[in-house]
Amino acid sequence: MKEINGGVTAPKGFKAFGLRAGIKPGKTNKDMAMVWSDTSANYAAVFTTNRVKAAPVLWDREIAEQGKPVRAIVINSGIANACTGDRGKKDTEETARMAAEALSVLTNEVLVASTGVIGAPLPMDVIEKGIKELSGKLQSDIEGGTLAAEAIMTTDTKKKEIAVEFQIGGKRVTMGGMCKGSGMIHPNMGTMLAFLTTDADISAELLRKALKADVEDTFNMVSVDGDTSTNDTLMVLANGCAGNAPITEEGEDFDAFKKALHFINEYLAKRIAEDGEGATRLFEVTVLNAKTKKDARVLARSVVSSNLTKAAIFGKDANWGRILCALGYSGGEFTPDKTDVIIKSNKGEIQLVKGGMAASYSEERASKILGSDAVCAIIDVHDGGFSATAWGCDLTFDYVTINADYRS
Amino acid sequence: MKEINGGVTAPKGFKAFGLRAGIKPGKTNKDMAMVWSDTSANYAAVFTTNRVKAAPVLWDREIAEQGKPVRAIVINSGIANACTGDRGKKDTEETARMAAEALSVLTNEVLVASTGVIGAPLPMDVIEKGIKELSGKLQSDIEGGTLAAEAIMTTDTKKKEIAVEFQIGGKRVTMGGMCKGSGMIHPNMGTMLAFLTTDADISAELLRKALKADVEDTFNMVSVDGDTSTNDTLMVLANGCAGNAPITEEGEDFDAFKKALHFINEYLAKRIAEDGEGATRLFEVTVLNAKTKKDARVLARSVVSSNLTKAAIFGKDANWGRILCALGYSGGEFTPDKTDVIIKSNKGEIQLVKGGMAASYSEERASKILGSDAVCAIIDVHDGGFSATAWGCDLTFDYVTINADYRS
Repeated sequence: MKEINGGVTAPKGFKAFGLRAGIKPGKTNKDMAMVWSDTSANYAAVFTTNRVKAAPVLWDREIAEQGKPVRAIVINSGIANACTGDRGKKDTEETARMAAEALSVLTNEVLVASTGVIGAPLPMDVIEKGIKELSGKLQSDIEGGTLAAEAIMTTDTKKKEIAVEFQIGGKRVTMGGMCKGSGMIHPNMGTMLAFLTTDADISAELLRKALKADVEDTFNMVSVDGDTSTNDTLMVLANGCAGNAPITEEGEDFDAFKKALHFINEYLAKRIAEDGEGATRLFEVTVLNAKTKKDARVLARSVVSSNLTKAAIFGKDANWGRILCALGYSGGEFTPDKTDVIIKSNKGEIQLVKGGMAASYSEERASKILGSDAVCAIIDVHDGGFSATAWGCDLTFDYVTINADYRS
Repeated sequence: MKEINGGVTAPKGFKAFGLRAGIKPGKTNKDMAMVWSDTSANYAAVFTTNRVKAAPVLWDREIAEQGKPVRAIVINSGIANACTGDRGKKDTEETARMAAEALSVLTNEVLVASTGVIGAPLPMDVIEKGIKELSGKLQSDIEGGTLAAEAIMTTDTKKKEIAVEFQIGGKRVTMGGMCKGSGMIHPNMGTMLAFLTTDADISAELLRKALKADVEDTFNMVSVDGDTSTNDTLMVLANGCAGNAPITEEGEDFDAFKKALHFINEYLAKRIAEDGEGATRLFEVTVLNAKTKKDARVLARSVVSSNLTKAAIFGKDANWGRILCALGYSGGEFTPDKTDVIIKSNKGEIQLVKGGMAASYSEERASKILGSDAVCAIIDVHDGGFSATAWGCDLTFDYVTINADYRS
């Protein structure tokens, strides 16, 4: 497997585009994107577990339940189309219908995703204009994917896309992905909006199986602020254009596919964490040797989600008591007196805690290590054989600035 | 029942004092307090549920389990004596022993509480000096209680104390309390440090019963930052000096006692919320008409704990989508489409959400209402007959400032 340039248009048979339709305030921000597959693509998705679900989530979930292949995704940023009642549902369906008409496919072959402010209705005239323009401009080159990745951003500061190629039975197969997500990010399910495309030929059933399993160790281990969004959606479209022998059962080919999927999901999940609202650094927490996989996940997620720990990371303060405290209230099983904590970055590595108490270390050196763009805390609970990693970011002034007045 | 001046020394037979021993950095901050009862006092307490428990919590819990009356409390701020292993346990016991000697009582009649930085050991020579000085200066007047309330503060900006008097069987009974708590505050149990005294004559059993029940609706409904501390302790001492007929069974007298206890607990809980680290306003969330009491509590706590909602409150932004979102991921039962949201303060009242969607309201007026020192969100889920209120504060720049470098 090797990383290549591009994103959702890297696999064969996919086109995309992104542009400004006029949903967001201002004059220049792109706010609509379309992804297209030249042929029918198998589709799998995971959605927010929030009881309040946005209208497009309901739409995409229904299509996932039908189990049918799809052809296109229409995405808008700026307005989430959540808490919009029957009107919201009608607007989503209308979006799919307009795109289906423009692209000459069926309405239930079009997926819809929205992100942005909750509670406001979609400006359907703007959406209509956007769909018409998008459907005429779809591009199969790298630029098409990049424009789409830019158009789905909200408070994101960087576009997030990646592509890899790998071999299945001697055939070159490609997978690409893009995502957005910066605030209202907390693990509970396919957090944020993420769109993966692949030209692999794989059954819908195995596609779903691979996605559901992998999301537990990737997107569900990301936390920016503990708030699980109403719109979280992660979907993957597989159109079979690579011409590999169809993957219809588990085995070597499926393993190669899962490896690529995991690489892309983990890459995108980390990009979301490091681009968390206001973040200055990526914060990675690995729990080693927990009693069960669940304990490892719960412990790692609790530390990465702790406001006090996140603020200490921002301040380059090796305040390990907050890490032990967050482990303690997580509900995960561990023995404080057996716990070791090490922090590390590209500036070095240092042990802060040995057996639940302060190790002897230099605060100055610890602070220097915490000054990196990416900081890891490695927590060994010496309690069993299970590990997990969670990703987050520091809590900064800018997080408050962004969220104290997101809507204006 | 009426509010009177003072705090823990308002009830008969209690003395207290607070002073600077030299635990905290700087030269002027008080950091040790002592509370004394002239006679044996029944004692009840609730403690942190954090798996990491500070040494004094283990000490006080053991005494609570023995069920014996007590005479004194020694409190230090500046160092939490948590994650300090066997040395920490020895230091706590030594603290109790030294106080017992100075006060001529038994070691297990002395409770100990600590708050401050995790992981550092107590400077026992300073503690010893402090105990000697405190035991010679105990005062039964209001000032004694106030000095104690000041000495237990860490990042608190205001001392928190209150007292009430009420009648039991024609006798005047008094109850007083003080607490501290500003960061690492999240409901899971007797959050933070709180000390209540009363001259009521009440059995230890009923004292425990009243405290355990009331904490669910008061201290456990406070959240500043979602981090449950290692040191949380709420204790009440009842010395019987009021001379009322002993309360040994449920009934009118017990009800009067519970009413006073609830008043003091709610008052102190709200003071903690409004003095949350960096807070500019108290944020009160009431959920009405939930299916069960548990749902009401879970829903209210989720909203009051949501970083995004808290940042919006700071920004005076009526971003009700974040409120619905926080209800949605709380795990509490409710129907989004039936939910109404009203905000209110001393500047007015306005409905933001009707049946899960935007009500028609003026953003300008909503922002004005949110500009008060104390803001309420009233969430009616129209689903049953249970209500609950939670207290928190806004998320501000100063929260980040305080916690990015708490230790220096």
